[in-house]
Amino acid sequence: MSDSKVMTRRALLVGVGAAGGAGAMFAAMGALGLAPDAQEKDFVPPQPSDFSLRGRGAAKVVILGAGVAGLTCAYELGKAGYDCTVLEAADRVGGRNLTLRRGDRLPETGGETQTAEFEEGTYFNAGPGRIAQWMVAMDYCRELGVPIETFVNNNASAYVYTGGMKAPARARTVRADLYGYVAELLAKATHAGALNRRLTKDDRDRLAEFLRRFGDLGPDLTYGGSTRRGFETYPGVTGGVPAGSPPSLSDVLSAGTGRALTMDFGYEQAMPMFQPVGGMDAIVTALAGAVGRDRIRTGARVTGVKNLPDGVEVAYQGGTLRADYCIATLPPHLLARLPHNLGAPITAALRTPVPVAAGKIGLEYGRRWWEIDDRIYGGITETDLDITHIWYPSHGYHSRSGLVVGYYNTEANAELYGGLPHRDRRSRALTQGKKIHGDKYRAELRSSVSIAWHRQPHIEGAWVYWPSHQGAFTLLQRPAGRVYFAGDWLTHLIAWQAGAMESARKAVTELHRRVLQTTS
Amino acid sequence: MSDSKVMTRRALLVGVGAAGGAGAMFAAMGALGLAPDAQEKDFVPPQPSDFSLRGRGAAKVVILGAGVAGLTCAYELGKAGYDCTVLEAADRVGGRNLTLRRGDRLPETGGETQTAEFEEGTYFNAGPGRIAQWMVAMDYCRELGVPIETFVNNNASAYVYTGGMKAPARARTVRADLYGYVAELLAKATHAGALNRRLTKDDRDRLAEFLRRFGDLGPDLTYGGSTRRGFETYPGVTGGVPAGSPPSLSDVLSAGTGRALTMDFGYEQAMPMFQPVGGMDAIVTALAGAVGRDRIRTGARVTGVKNLPDGVEVAYQGGTLRADYCIATLPPHLLARLPHNLGAPITAALRTPVPVAAGKIGLEYGRRWWEIDDRIYGGITETDLDITHIWYPSHGYHSRSGLVVGYYNTEANAELYGGLPHRDRRSRALTQGKKIHGDKYRAELRSSVSIAWHRQPHIEGAWVYWPSHQGAFTLLQRPAGRVYFAGDWLTHLIAWQAGAMESARKAVTELHRRVLQTTS
Repeated sequence: MSDSKVMTRRALLVGVGAAGGAGAMFAAMGALGLAPDAQEKDFVPPQPSDFSLRGRGAAKVVILGAGVAGLTCAYELGKAGYDCTVLEAADRVGGRNLTLRRGDRLPETGGETQTAEFEEGTYFNAGPGRIAQWMVAMDYCRELGVPIETFVNNNASAYVYTGGMKAPARARTVRADLYGYVAELLAKATHAGALNRRLTKDDRDRLAEFLRRFGDLGPDLTYGGSTRRGFETYPGVTGGVPAGSPPSLSDVLSAGTGRALTMDFGYEQAMPMFQPVGGMDAIVTALAGAVGRDRIRTGARVTGVKNLPDGVEVAYQGGTLRADYCIATLPPHLLARLPHNLGAPITAALRTPVPVAAGKIGLEYGRRWWEIDDRIYGGITETDLDITHIWYPSHGYHSRSGLVVGYYNTEANAELYGGLPHRDRRSRALTQGKKIHGDKYRAELRSSVSIAWHRQPHIEGAWVYWPSHQGAFTLLQRPAGRVYFAGDWLTHLIAWQAGAMESARKAVTELHRRVLQTTS
Repeated sequence: MSDSKVMTRRALLVGVGAAGGAGAMFAAMGALGLAPDAQEKDFVPPQPSDFSLRGRGAAKVVILGAGVAGLTCAYELGKAGYDCTVLEAADRVGGRNLTLRRGDRLPETGGETQTAEFEEGTYFNAGPGRIAQWMVAMDYCRELGVPIETFVNNNASAYVYTGGMKAPARARTVRADLYGYVAELLAKATHAGALNRRLTKDDRDRLAEFLRRFGDLGPDLTYGGSTRRGFETYPGVTGGVPAGSPPSLSDVLSAGTGRALTMDFGYEQAMPMFQPVGGMDAIVTALAGAVGRDRIRTGARVTGVKNLPDGVEVAYQGGTLRADYCIATLPPHLLARLPHNLGAPITAALRTPVPVAAGKIGLEYGRRWWEIDDRIYGGITETDLDITHIWYPSHGYHSRSGLVVGYYNTEANAELYGGLPHRDRRSRALTQGKKIHGDKYRAELRSSVSIAWHRQPHIEGAWVYWPSHQGAFTLLQRPAGRVYFAGDWLTHLIAWQAGAMESARKAVTELHRRVLQTTS
């Protein structure tokens, strides 16, 4: 597997819901010498005592960008009394952590400005939507008192739909059939002696026992359907009406549902996942509140960064700021365009990562037909259509209205949708979703908002991928003079808020160490 | 597969977390002629208009038992204005739907009375704890305005522990290894030509593509570990430190983790599942409120049931009630002991289902170490120890304290624990759980309560199993004179509240039809 493929894995994962290639990446990481490096496991934020013990004040830091990385830097430095100022080009904080509600305006570069016409209480996480248990974003939720709830990333009752299928099928049905046939094939091959050289008799017996259970096989090791496929009418007073017989092995294989089936196998997407109650922006609201709104200047687009002999000078729309240090958390492709005196290698390095397009549409319905008609409570329908996914809300169960994410696509599909006016994005998304959910998908729509992250002002991309994790990636881990860099784009957790937070922790830890060393 | 095995499936499922045998059951159900019968799909509750159109009043019904079945009967009949009285032996409503909170007393037949010493806000669902999306219990939550939240039935970060393992492993690790090796074995057997007679070249290619993805295989079709196994240190600024190399195929097979891996494959347990916010008893509280507390007499143990020529007479501690009809929802083994004039075949039928023992212990901790130390948010650790499972709470994430279910076992294990005083149950549960979670499991315990359902007064069993679904099961579906029977024990959803509700719907539908026919 090539290095460039390794680095696009995250894009692939998010883009097409695949978890494939992880093992290969694991091997590649080892070969590149990446895997053995432990990160700072026990992060200790800068402490006020570090300064007071030395009888001096804290340093002044200007932070570029009030996204998750910038806010985390300001929050952690603020704990030790650093004098931080955050400059943000947009008129709101959060960056890609964006939750849209009734009345919110969404401008687009070279396009229209949409206004969310949702009902009160409806929200749309236009950016990140889920957090894994092991991610540091969970710790910030705990530390900041942001309540969390389960995000359903995989639902046995959601649908799978591919061009290889005659009609959408429930995920549980697809899983039962694929596992059933895989178990049957291996059990029969084992029984026929194909594994006699590899496995002992005891191992073969244990394997057969597992396969019977795994595939719900009959006594003759044949898969002939299973209650795991679900029911037309579920059991109750009677035994119910099973959901028909499985398609043939050949039909199951040609349906191409393997990608959908393995979408939560990876370490980033495994169930359960989590979300803040009331919208993802609860995290940035809490961070910004802890930093202090007076330390954050919105509508302050940065126009230049200069290393000085004894500090930094940052020019922005509205003035110029002097500080001891700077942490630049803007997307690298925007930083690369900024006038600066950090040197040509830095510019070249900032130009290396490639922005990736991604888009989402929020479709608001006045009736939760997915719960009432389809018995789907949260989760994701996987498709090979250009919409890729349909997300059902993991909150507000049983309330009257709700919002479905009608597409979450990347790269070519995102560029295709992003190139259309909102009206046409919606129309296309509805045409696709109708293939799964029928007429109500169009007929019952109440309102909608779509986002094309590569067309978002001051952002211009959903995330980036690195052609290589050597060279430029390594260079930008170190400060350029008094300017540090931070962001998910400088981590192995690209496109996750946790990446932004981990990078912020690294930057402030190193900056603080330097401050203590150089001035004590 | 024998008939008796079919009927114990639910007990097996709940008891040991297995989903095995479902396919076989499916086949058996078909053979028994059970599968083809559709249940009443579109339930229409008794309507007041049914009576008013006929210019007469509704009938009087006495309902035995204020568990979920009894309350659902009273609720549905109440919609049409039936004059219902519910007699309940215990001093509370709900039956096995039991949520314990601070100060609640839990008496036990032939044993001590425990008092819950939980902190305010802690609760313990001592009975049912989860609801599947397709179950009618979800509809009642919606109809009654009981808010629900996700119940995490399967967590990739929870542990698996069997006697065949050297140490507990994360579920994600166990899954990656088993799927990895299964994929490798089948991919290599396919490659070696073992399936050439069964599969076309195209099918073999599709199978190989799926297996690569399913097992995260390397280019040579070998499983050599995967990031899906998890990490010692998860990726962040660096690529992280993977969780070591996989054990050998032989070690993976002899670990016997297949049962844990397939625990949510069945239609009853598939993810996601749901629970009422604040405790399962929110359902019975809402039902009882809708019925009207004045219609429910607690502390009213039934002592006799008589069919009369024109009604029924029910004797209970406190008096005698005359009514037009009776619905008996007590456990069958208790009904069988009740003096009645319903005939010997009814007594024999009621004696047929066999009560099953089950027990749970709630372990309250003052610190959510499973979230903070182990990064486990909800879900279940599967073991082959006598505790069977450890459940982590799917609510109150990040709050200070919380309650873990330290065992949920059935049959022999439940009888073993149930035979001990609470102190010894707790001690034994802590000794077992310590094998997975270490010293803190014992050291940080704050309080505990245990339940042995087979020792609960007026209940005497967690649920029942039927040696056969013919004969007695069929007989009791029909009324004995004016006495109807209802309960989860009369359905194919034994041990689920939905079973009690479906059975109640059937009973009231049939009773109402009869009332309309006989008196209009």
